[in-house]
Amino acid sequence: MDAQGRPLVIVSNRGPVSFRRADDGALVARRGGGGLVSGLAPLVADSGVVWIASALSEDDRAAAAEGSVQAEGFRLEFVLHDPDVLRMAYDVVGNAVLWFVHHGLFELARRPRFDRGFREAWAAFVTYNRSFADAVVAGAPADAVVLVQDYHLSLMAPMVVDRRPDLSLVHFAHTPFGGPELLNVLPDPYRRELLEGLAANAACGFHTDRWRRRFVASCEEFGVPAPPTFASSLAPDPEDLAGVADGPAAAEWRERFAQRFAGLQVIVRVDRIELSKNILRGFWAYEELLERWPEYRGTVCFMASVYPSREGLAEYLAYRQEIEHLVERINQRFGTATWTPIVLETADDFPRSVALLGRYDVLLVNPVSDGMNLVAKEGPLVNRHDGVLVLSTETGAWEELREVALGVHPCDVSATAEALAEALSLSAAERRARADRLVAAAGARTPRHWLHDQLAAVTSR
Amino acid sequence: MDAQGRPLVIVSNRGPVSFRRADDGALVARRGGGGLVSGLAPLVADSGVVWIASALSEDDRAAAAEGSVQAEGFRLEFVLHDPDVLRMAYDVVGNAVLWFVHHGLFELARRPRFDRGFREAWAAFVTYNRSFADAVVAGAPADAVVLVQDYHLSLMAPMVVDRRPDLSLVHFAHTPFGGPELLNVLPDPYRRELLEGLAANAACGFHTDRWRRRFVASCEEFGVPAPPTFASSLAPDPEDLAGVADGPAAAEWRERFAQRFAGLQVIVRVDRIELSKNILRGFWAYEELLERWPEYRGTVCFMASVYPSREGLAEYLAYRQEIEHLVERINQRFGTATWTPIVLETADDFPRSVALLGRYDVLLVNPVSDGMNLVAKEGPLVNRHDGVLVLSTETGAWEELREVALGVHPCDVSATAEALAEALSLSAAERRARADRLVAAAGARTPRHWLHDQLAAVTSR
Repeated sequence: MDAQGRPLVIVSNRGPVSFRRADDGALVARRGGGGLVSGLAPLVADSGVVWIASALSEDDRAAAAEGSVQAEGFRLEFVLHDPDVLRMAYDVVGNAVLWFVHHGLFELARRPRFDRGFREAWAAFVTYNRSFADAVVAGAPADAVVLVQDYHLSLMAPMVVDRRPDLSLVHFAHTPFGGPELLNVLPDPYRRELLEGLAANAACGFHTDRWRRRFVASCEEFGVPAPPTFASSLAPDPEDLAGVADGPAAAEWRERFAQRFAGLQVIVRVDRIELSKNILRGFWAYEELLERWPEYRGTVCFMASVYPSREGLAEYLAYRQEIEHLVERINQRFGTATWTPIVLETADDFPRSVALLGRYDVLLVNPVSDGMNLVAKEGPLVNRHDGVLVLSTETGAWEELREVALGVHPCDVSATAEALAEALSLSAAERRARADRLVAAAGARTPRHWLHDQLAAVTSR
Repeated sequence: MDAQGRPLVIVSNRGPVSFRRADDGALVARRGGGGLVSGLAPLVADSGVVWIASALSEDDRAAAAEGSVQAEGFRLEFVLHDPDVLRMAYDVVGNAVLWFVHHGLFELARRPRFDRGFREAWAAFVTYNRSFADAVVAGAPADAVVLVQDYHLSLMAPMVVDRRPDLSLVHFAHTPFGGPELLNVLPDPYRRELLEGLAANAACGFHTDRWRRRFVASCEEFGVPAPPTFASSLAPDPEDLAGVADGPAAAEWRERFAQRFAGLQVIVRVDRIELSKNILRGFWAYEELLERWPEYRGTVCFMASVYPSREGLAEYLAYRQEIEHLVERINQRFGTATWTPIVLETADDFPRSVALLGRYDVLLVNPVSDGMNLVAKEGPLVNRHDGVLVLSTETGAWEELREVALGVHPCDVSATAEALAEALSLSAAERRARADRLVAAAGARTPRHWLHDQLAAVTSR
């Protein structure tokens, strides 16, 4: 970490720790999850960094009421939001609109619907960003570099820069970014506010050059001067991963999986149940595989570890139900007394996921769009079976792994079935050679590189 | 019409006439509908032009069996397709995929699904295009200019050019065209075949420069050298329109509408029931209008003339049902014994539509995306009430009418409600002044200009 001696501030909705009241009434800090936190937190712990994040629970609010929080080596400043403001800003504007815009998920004949309810939600989104801006203005040390994480904070920069010209703000988008055609779905003034909000940062970063170019193209199309931009990919922390993989919980799962999948080739996916993850087409492709290559009936198992997410949004509940029905149908169609074609697991258990990633023969990562997709890198780093990666061309990870993965267009069900068949049929020698290159590519970068690039975007000028 | 003395060939799926067997068993030609045919047919009738089109019915096939058809002054060459090929090429690939791609209509979490069924349909699409290519190769006079109409024929040009280098092919797209982000939904090799198919024409034309730029951007993004391109908008034929408006059928409807809407301000829309037309949001906006401006309850009527289309596709049936339910709900919410807020008419009757366009106070044209939208020009040309046009910014027509219409983003329900309120509240003098400019802008071009531009694209070089 090198900010050339300048203090560092991190701003994100979810902080590095959350609080829970223990049985004795004391507030206990717990390390949070997610790629952002697990990537960044170890790097900046004990560095005196200021981390500004939303208080997301009553216990967080209680901790905040006791003043700024020292936890795991951070100075954590909680931002307190009115619960309705938080819900409208985060769920309605962030998750149900901006996420859909950047991933192109809307069914345009019906959604989005920018009505009075949305205007109110947008006002809440402005308020939410202003609360963060106020916390930065009040809490950032002089001359700090401020790393603003992700799209929920897209409007914050203009609310800071005039009041604290000493700060350098860097915004990093963890999603893909919508170019002119995707952003077109967002009417003015929302679209303009969004682009102007981002453009007020000293620099804007994206996981790949593809998303960076889309952002610049949107700025051009809609007449907003683009700020300096950079592309820098996030990667998993190999030590963190190895720690989990070598731990007792993963070992226990590994043992169970070894028994369960003895004699079978295993296709694995590990995902949130999220519209962008393309879980349905993954199963349709598997169904086509079993139709066209009967030799895989009874000799392959598809283990899908997909855990619920955003169940407050009706679309996500419906999507989960469709997944469950589809799995049931395929299992009824092809299953036998001794063989279940698809095993669906919906528990979110990281050691279990890591053990599963250790076991796959084929890892399927086929999102319709994905800013990066860390599973595509985590898998090769922990796999012990010379597993093959089948990877969507619409992920950020594809830009780094294209030479060593089997690429599929996410909508092409037949091509995905063929890629699975190819992966299952590779010889041991081919798998070995491919896996070595895959591990090298997936491990080429660490969170440290990514952090460095964000700092360099403003300190190397 | 000036092809500098070169013969002219027109190629389109739907021809200028279709056949029906009369009671005496004779095959009788009937003029076809649609903007393309009504725009082009009068210009080229009696000019000896060769028009190549699909035989779409058994009676068309019977007429074709009797040899090439002389009808209304054209030499009509019917292309005979296997009915399954026609259905897969036109309905599955054309209407259910390419139309959705260019208009951005997919709900990406579930559709499109490029599976074995689609591969078969694509093969039919290739066959369909080859049948047209064969007809052109066999039937086009030496040195002809060949005007290829619309996206169903995107693959034809490469199948012609080597065999008939004397011909100059001009492709015209009546849809919007998908730029890199929209075309991204289409996997290779389909995407590449599509772009290479278009690029083999001597020129490619689009209704607006916006779609033209998107096509060029897609060619660049996906590595296909772009052909010469041009933008040229289609417009309604004012004489044709005046003929209908002055006819007895329209006069009768006009009389009925005068009585029915006496004392009311009338909002009108005239559309196919088509996912891109944004009919639901139009009603949601009207509902918001009635909520926010109670003075329009009982004093306004929304007359929606929307007629069924593509009912072979499940999405279109579902969409029609949603429309009917929404209208019922709004009418139940706001209707009284003497006032019905929305009148829904689903009969496709051109004189009736023209009479309705004569009557509106406000014409709502709010598609989520539309290559041109001729209703936006037809309305002003036949309206007799100094009506105001509320127009989606995502139509081709917007590029020509932006100075004289009230623009709305199609997804912005609240802004649409506000535009309707503004339109309803304009003074008579404001409406008068605005209507004059609107008529001038809507009538600035005729089909003759459009035809001329297509010819000029290859004869002026």
